[in-house]
Amino acid sequence: MNMNREKVQIFDTTLRDGEQVPGCKLDTKQKLVIAERLDKMGVDIIEAGFPVSSPGDFLSVSEICKIVENATVCGLTRAVKNDIDVAAAALKHAKKPRIHTGIGTSESHILHKLQTTPEDIIARAKFAVAHAKSYVEDVEFYAEDAGRTDNAFLAKVCEEVIKSGATVLNIPDTTGYCLPEEYGAKIKYLKENVKGIENVILSCHCHNDLGMATANSIAGAINGARQIECTINGIGERAGNTALEEVVMIFKQHPYLNLDTNINTRELNEMSRLVSESMGMIVQPNKAIVGANAFAHSSGIHQDGVIKNRATYEIMDPLDVGVNESSIILTARSGRAALAYRAKKVGYELTKTQLDTVYIEFLKFADIKKEVVDADIHQIIEASKIEGELIRS
Amino acid sequence: MNMNREKVQIFDTTLRDGEQVPGCKLDTKQKLVIAERLDKMGVDIIEAGFPVSSPGDFLSVSEICKIVENATVCGLTRAVKNDIDVAAAALKHAKKPRIHTGIGTSESHILHKLQTTPEDIIARAKFAVAHAKSYVEDVEFYAEDAGRTDNAFLAKVCEEVIKSGATVLNIPDTTGYCLPEEYGAKIKYLKENVKGIENVILSCHCHNDLGMATANSIAGAINGARQIECTINGIGERAGNTALEEVVMIFKQHPYLNLDTNINTRELNEMSRLVSESMGMIVQPNKAIVGANAFAHSSGIHQDGVIKNRATYEIMDPLDVGVNESSIILTARSGRAALAYRAKKVGYELTKTQLDTVYIEFLKFADIKKEVVDADIHQIIEASKIEGELIRS
Repeated sequence: MNMNREKVQIFDTTLRDGEQVPGCKLDTKQKLVIAERLDKMGVDIIEAGFPVSSPGDFLSVSEICKIVENATVCGLTRAVKNDIDVAAAALKHAKKPRIHTGIGTSESHILHKLQTTPEDIIARAKFAVAHAKSYVEDVEFYAEDAGRTDNAFLAKVCEEVIKSGATVLNIPDTTGYCLPEEYGAKIKYLKENVKGIENVILSCHCHNDLGMATANSIAGAINGARQIECTINGIGERAGNTALEEVVMIFKQHPYLNLDTNINTRELNEMSRLVSESMGMIVQPNKAIVGANAFAHSSGIHQDGVIKNRATYEIMDPLDVGVNESSIILTARSGRAALAYRAKKVGYELTKTQLDTVYIEFLKFADIKKEVVDADIHQIIEASKIEGELIRS
Repeated sequence: MNMNREKVQIFDTTLRDGEQVPGCKLDTKQKLVIAERLDKMGVDIIEAGFPVSSPGDFLSVSEICKIVENATVCGLTRAVKNDIDVAAAALKHAKKPRIHTGIGTSESHILHKLQTTPEDIIARAKFAVAHAKSYVEDVEFYAEDAGRTDNAFLAKVCEEVIKSGATVLNIPDTTGYCLPEEYGAKIKYLKENVKGIENVILSCHCHNDLGMATANSIAGAINGARQIECTINGIGERAGNTALEEVVMIFKQHPYLNLDTNINTRELNEMSRLVSESMGMIVQPNKAIVGANAFAHSSGIHQDGVIKNRATYEIMDPLDVGVNESSIILTARSGRAALAYRAKKVGYELTKTQLDTVYIEFLKFADIKKEVVDADIHQIIEASKIEGELIRS
């Protein structure tokens, strides 16, 4: 069935945009471990770094190129000759090298940051793409702050860099400002108004400042983008980037979108842990897909439902993302069904009347203790004044 | 300007759905502190608990009613007579009480969890709403798993509970399955197909299993919902609920939506910290709006942009959410502009040539040390072989 679904390329930028986090720098050795695992998991493009930015980054990109077997390896540059020369040198050993170059296209970037004119931006963009193309076949162009760039001007820039040889057009919502409808409409506009667009791939690169990165990327794909730039755990500058694990699972769980990725989803949980531990970047327990609680049920109503039929409250099989089983944790919010289920697991077959008695004791206990673990259940049952014979299963 | 924008009610369920987190139970005293602060911040409805679930929860709801001055206080129930009786008792002292009752409406809930028929669901829903109405004027009905409920049946349930006196209709995406387009279309369908819908408020209650909770809630509001159920930091069962701070800031930053809330956004950062500390629930650094890094820039390109003009990379003024200033943190990704900016702050006016020299020393230093703090800058400058006079500002 999956064979008929169109593929969306997964461009992982954990090692570049993801690493732009205060205090979370990775060394080359750590980057190599992560890159190898990303490659194995099925990532299509690994953005390995920004070679001109420091000697350490150059070395990392260069070493990553030597060990990656399947993925394209990409290096970031500004639209500056030396950046591109240095990136090309760093990518020398890649089986499939890609140079990612670009420039700001929004009014704010042109006037305030670059202090130049729209014409000059186009000239610099064309030069950068052509220069990168002199080194590698695969050249991705980013229109920085595309999210706030006028669509007509953006289309013009895209058209010009396609002429200069760009193979992928990255449309970043650099500040995380867009809403899904708006971002989707932008991608649709480019699909419909840029000459030659059918020969290149449109890419979504969204930031999460308003919590919209994943939704925007999905809206982009629905409207024709075929590459999504993302990071493990959604890490990155400020509120981070689109979370790889979220977009991958959305395509998997929504087959009617008719889109899919090459990611082996069973690697997601372990991948998340590796990146979190290497960078010292904590994943909050309520993080979608990879948070410690993502598959944990604590309320009575939910636990009862899950015990009767997992599909009542779970839309994903935890195994599909590499999690061993849903955790059923007992708290004061837990109901009789969850208590009976757990009591059975530790060896007691309670009758309905017995369960009522044990439940009262359980609530007193749970109101004081935050979590009730298996060992506590024996204690609770012993403390309850149970009538009739206690059956051990 | 804000005066013409339509208001979306903010229904905070941090103390009910948010608290359904393994190991994060709050005691009554902690809940009172949070409730008081939510009330002061401008939350319209505080869901204080699920009174029948445990004696501790009953007490918390009851005590919260006594101290809340402006907000409506709401208690959750199942569509069960005793739940509603107990909730009414817990809400006795509320200035503005609301009972929130409901039942599962999806095929999965009707067949597997409740093991009954659609007709019986409607009968139980009507009974519950009417019974709650005998206690309070303000009755909210939830159609559990509405996200996966057939729209025609959902519309029928809504129509029937409106007849029984419901004032608010909650359309929960209980499993976090929906995508924004789908969830928005569901709200639109109800707006267009339910008799009497103009007399009630439609409410969004979204879960974040696929990272879509905020996007879905916004899509709901764009399509006519006028209440959003959310939690501080997006906490809650599994991957949690819609994050209050995200929806509030999206409306604030997107005036063309013509929607607004009553929240004093300057309280958001402090509120986030209070909830995180009280529950022991960590907020990841890259959490939108309230994460420690939400306004921190570390890469050279971004820092250069922010220094020239904050709007280049920041769509929000950190002060608007109660954060004192953007942190400019130096790492090996930082550029000359950031270094010069920080050097000036600690007392050095470097010439361009001097900056070049210091920058090389800085990169060596930053490649080893993850973060460069102010004290390190003196050391770096001393270690650099600076030519010419060093001007201290």
